[in-house]
Amino acid sequence: MSLTTIQLKAPYLIFLGEVDSPVYSKTGAGIVQWRPELVAGQLRFAGNQLSLGVPDMTVQQAVKAGVKSIIIGVAPVGGKIEDEWLKVLEEAAKLGIDVVSGLHHRLESFPGLVAAANKSGAQLVNVRTPASGLPVGSGKKRSGKRLLMVGTDCAVGKKYTALAMAQALQEKNVQATFRATGQTGIMIAGSGIPIDTVVADFVSGAAEVLSPDNADDHWDVIEGQGSILHPGYAAVSLGLLHGSQPDAFIVCHEPTRTTMEGFPAAAMPTVQQCIDLTIQCGKLTNPAIRCVGVSVNTSRLPEKDRIPYLEQLAQETQLPCVDPILTGCEALVQNLF
Amino acid sequence: MSLTTIQLKAPYLIFLGEVDSPVYSKTGAGIVQWRPELVAGQLRFAGNQLSLGVPDMTVQQAVKAGVKSIIIGVAPVGGKIEDEWLKVLEEAAKLGIDVVSGLHHRLESFPGLVAAANKSGAQLVNVRTPASGLPVGSGKKRSGKRLLMVGTDCAVGKKYTALAMAQALQEKNVQATFRATGQTGIMIAGSGIPIDTVVADFVSGAAEVLSPDNADDHWDVIEGQGSILHPGYAAVSLGLLHGSQPDAFIVCHEPTRTTMEGFPAAAMPTVQQCIDLTIQCGKLTNPAIRCVGVSVNTSRLPEKDRIPYLEQLAQETQLPCVDPILTGCEALVQNLF
Repeated sequence: MSLTTIQLKAPYLIFLGEVDSPVYSKTGAGIVQWRPELVAGQLRFAGNQLSLGVPDMTVQQAVKAGVKSIIIGVAPVGGKIEDEWLKVLEEAAKLGIDVVSGLHHRLESFPGLVAAANKSGAQLVNVRTPASGLPVGSGKKRSGKRLLMVGTDCAVGKKYTALAMAQALQEKNVQATFRATGQTGIMIAGSGIPIDTVVADFVSGAAEVLSPDNADDHWDVIEGQGSILHPGYAAVSLGLLHGSQPDAFIVCHEPTRTTMEGFPAAAMPTVQQCIDLTIQCGKLTNPAIRCVGVSVNTSRLPEKDRIPYLEQLAQETQLPCVDPILTGCEALVQNLF
Repeated sequence: MSLTTIQLKAPYLIFLGEVDSPVYSKTGAGIVQWRPELVAGQLRFAGNQLSLGVPDMTVQQAVKAGVKSIIIGVAPVGGKIEDEWLKVLEEAAKLGIDVVSGLHHRLESFPGLVAAANKSGAQLVNVRTPASGLPVGSGKKRSGKRLLMVGTDCAVGKKYTALAMAQALQEKNVQATFRATGQTGIMIAGSGIPIDTVVADFVSGAAEVLSPDNADDHWDVIEGQGSILHPGYAAVSLGLLHGSQPDAFIVCHEPTRTTMEGFPAAAMPTVQQCIDLTIQCGKLTNPAIRCVGVSVNTSRLPEKDRIPYLEQLAQETQLPCVDPILTGCEALVQNLF
């Protein structure tokens, strides 16, 4: 993969600090869930009862265990990196361990951390940093197969579904690679491009770089962003669709919203609207594009309504409809071939 | 208009230097054509036979004439700003005149120019610089009317058509404002946002800022960018469409291309495809969106085929089809009301 993508070095030490809330430690938990083989351990402050179920380590122990990156696996509750955190991160940087952050504050804004990294040669990696040197999208056909997640809104399970699909394909001995387009996805995948930080002229080019030519039977499973029907983020979604030139896509959906999350002026589109517009736009770079199914986050529906909802949606769309956590992704995988 | 847009101060001195090619002086010529009332004069080096038809002025004379900005109205033939140019620009900056450039090289990369500007308080204005502090698009309905140029490709006459339409409306005493989204357009309008330099997440938000609430019978005539059917630039075009929430749009087209300019892998879409997809996507932020006609650059067709081409296209699309230079825009203006 090109230098325009972010690349993390494994194995990792996941930094939790004093944060003991599962909500604020989703990134760390996601890495352990999806990439346990890359995680050497966790670093918690004394008294923190939250555990990701991996060995506790000090920075010194991590060095001995060959750790290459310390990843901030939590969001600071006040939004700010505390002095106690910086001490640990500086110690790691001083010993040559890369420091990886998805926080808004750039790591370069902490002089002590910069000095420590400069001395040892450790990298400070901000996974929100826009890639530079990206090309304009060409629309040229690439080899290999691509499966893109699209959505009726933001935060409807695109990352989770992509990770679950990549894993399900690999378990069937299908060559498959998860391609990350957002910060948490990048931390899980260990590489990727934070596509929403790319200048608009280069979004489809970024997506082309993200899923390069590959073996004919290899599947890139690409994390989606936003929605082509979103008044704020559709530009990102369309560039990603064009550059990904997907052979297949999955619509991700959350059935209880009436308006888009945080956008009270924007009505939720239907799954069918999302299918139709994705096909119409996606044909530009892949005339064979097709929808292979729908992935629904049913967790906000009453328990008794979840399976009936999926069944009704399957009837309406004539497509397999799953909730990856409730039913697994098998029906979607089968419809790929 | 908000601080997130570029704003130029008039009157202008147009800098031509030694450039005597009409092709490389299009920006200067465009400003004189569309905004003659803002142009105090031109500055040419001795022996340059090219003239924009406005008074010749030295920097000293420009100061006396009250000039507020010197605008680089030419592209340097070698792509580089020559020392001879810098001398003039520095003299202007030293005397408090803003320096305005649409070149790739940022004005801040010339220390002498920066020092001169800092001393006098003159601004160095790069019209390619991305705006900062832009919001994410909300999709909320704004007051006033909006007319957007869209295209089947880049470089098909969107800027020219928008300027011609704004002028035609003003001549009918309709309140109308040209809204610039590209560098040349910004230099002509004196303000605007270079929309293709905006980070993808903020493109529709930028378009919302560019055409704010206005009087109910006021028309913003918005310069388009790229094409919603372009494999490289569709993200820009879709964000601009959503944020502009146009009541009406005009499709701009060049009829002799078989593939998109510079993109041999990308077939040219038809005008009808462009109309259909623009309506389908544009409905998201303005359900009443409609196409009011087609603006064709017929100059590459044989002369005898030009009017017949427009007539045939009008029959196919059931819409007024004009070439603004050949036929004027009157038919499009009439279809707006």
